[in-house]
Amino acid sequence: MGEFDLIARYFTRPATRAALGVGDDCALLRPTPGTQLAVSSDMLVEGRHFFTDVDPAALGHKALAVNLSDLAACGATPVAFTLALALPRANEAWLAPFSRGLLALADAHGCELVGGDTTQGPLNICITVFGEVPVVNGKSQALLRSGARAGDDIYVSGTLGDARLALDALRGVLALPADVLAQARQRLERPTPRVALGQALRGVATAALDLSDGLTGDLHHILKASGVGATLDTSVAIGLIAASAHPACATGLFSLEQRLQCVLSGGDDYELAFTAPASARAAVQAAARQADTPVTRIGRIDAEPGLRLIDADGQSLGGQFASFDHFSASAAATAP
Amino acid sequence: MGEFDLIARYFTRPATRAALGVGDDCALLRPTPGTQLAVSSDMLVEGRHFFTDVDPAALGHKALAVNLSDLAACGATPVAFTLALALPRANEAWLAPFSRGLLALADAHGCELVGGDTTQGPLNICITVFGEVPVVNGKSQALLRSGARAGDDIYVSGTLGDARLALDALRGVLALPADVLAQARQRLERPTPRVALGQALRGVATAALDLSDGLTGDLHHILKASGVGATLDTSVAIGLIAASAHPACATGLFSLEQRLQCVLSGGDDYELAFTAPASARAAVQAAARQADTPVTRIGRIDAEPGLRLIDADGQSLGGQFASFDHFSASAAATAP
Repeated sequence: MGEFDLIARYFTRPATRAALGVGDDCALLRPTPGTQLAVSSDMLVEGRHFFTDVDPAALGHKALAVNLSDLAACGATPVAFTLALALPRANEAWLAPFSRGLLALADAHGCELVGGDTTQGPLNICITVFGEVPVVNGKSQALLRSGARAGDDIYVSGTLGDARLALDALRGVLALPADVLAQARQRLERPTPRVALGQALRGVATAALDLSDGLTGDLHHILKASGVGATLDTSVAIGLIAASAHPACATGLFSLEQRLQCVLSGGDDYELAFTAPASARAAVQAAARQADTPVTRIGRIDAEPGLRLIDADGQSLGGQFASFDHFSASAAATAP
Repeated sequence: MGEFDLIARYFTRPATRAALGVGDDCALLRPTPGTQLAVSSDMLVEGRHFFTDVDPAALGHKALAVNLSDLAACGATPVAFTLALALPRANEAWLAPFSRGLLALADAHGCELVGGDTTQGPLNICITVFGEVPVVNGKSQALLRSGARAGDDIYVSGTLGDARLALDALRGVLALPADVLAQARQRLERPTPRVALGQALRGVATAALDLSDGLTGDLHHILKASGVGATLDTSVAIGLIAASAHPACATGLFSLEQRLQCVLSGGDDYELAFTAPASARAAVQAAARQADTPVTRIGRIDAEPGLRLIDADGQSLGGQFASFDHFSASAAATAP
């Protein structure tokens, strides 16, 4: 089966929002007047970003989800995407579920596949996604990393750390009860891009990003871009791992250290971390309700540079936790 | 050297036209009012689209050139691009010249690198490029594949077949004099995207595409999209290979068959093929002069489906040339 047949069979659908979709030299998009175009690109490589035997439908979902997550972090409304795909061979048993998982998520967000490329090569999925952000009174409503100010609260959406828990179990680093693994694996393989929350936070959040490499490592990008520091309350953060609710936690199957490591530096969560002034707490909760997405306040932005981890009593964590910051920063530097 | 250091060192430059460039979750582009956005994505894989030992500066040039060529085929004005790059290892001796070649071509076209991704993996370069096409009186000025009409002339820009000649020489299929190889290799490794010509042809050409897989194979896309057929004058086409001018041609080093095969189904030319009414011949030549790009009229569009190859006397080519059409169509189906 040749390249053009593949494209036609699995990835060509009539253009709806786009002026011209798949099948010419370029796709043509009609920008909405009064908007900026948000663009992001992510490349997923077999063996690095996913296991070789991953469910192709889940992979199709995740490949787009990680890109939609970038749009969410900007507060952008998804519009369209391109897909470039290198495949070792044209394998319909793989392509059919992959395109099904991909296009189901695309449809759920009204994000249209408008073009791309397919070629023979080691499995590689590169998606570039386009979204729109309103410009109001000449001012872009995009959420950036650079807007955090001392005194702002720090929030994260949803749950953190379960994807890492699943990854460790699949790698054989730890053993999980079957029901915990199934739940955690959903988080690893089918992350939920927080698109509605990102849009609801326009005009509310001062800074935002999505968590792909791990909370502390990613938070550094906001701190650096904004020229600030932060304090995180680990007694709150520890509760963010969904698996904490499992009886196995009570029986000591997951230690406090394991849970905290998953939450603080787990990666692959695709939740949003964002900041907002204390005066905006009601507005943040209203945005969370509007987006039907839970958010948790986990710390505050400081004028003093650096990231501090404290316990419930406000004391700095010592021992191995003191090194989380460094560990996470290093991990992030080599992670996808 | 970690991912973020790499990005910072080789690919981060201040945003100029974009509202926000490399370094946040998304780049932000400001669409020009009254334009459509043209988008194209191409993925280049080591061993398939380029040799492992190719000059990294030439590869950087070519990776962007093939994308700019898609914009040219649409008549779009380049604006910005994203780069997703999988590298086996962070090798500065490779990255420095690669980024130099890439950004030199980007600068020449005012096309800004606004974002992307880097990861560890088998060498893979995926560029997504953005351009703008004016909308005049509610009508997009984009050049599509679907506008060719019976009676239109068929043109190609520049020269054809030299890239394939170089490829065959580098593969050891044929031997070339050193000066011919050097010239042909430039065409293979540093193609010239016909961006100015594409823009000059807005409102003049009825259909256009860029030649990546080979003239006859690619021309089929116009014929299919436009619901027409075509006749190509091979006595004109044969002159399109620049190496024809070399004395070696006269001494029989390149046979007529070899030259015609390179021209008709060589691939990797990145010239434009386009159609225009006979009444627009002066306008086509004016566009060519404006873009400082030679164009050659090589055939005509017919109402009758199919592609016919004729000689100087208007006779159908028989023998092996009769199969060029089929050969090219098959080659195109498995080519990048």
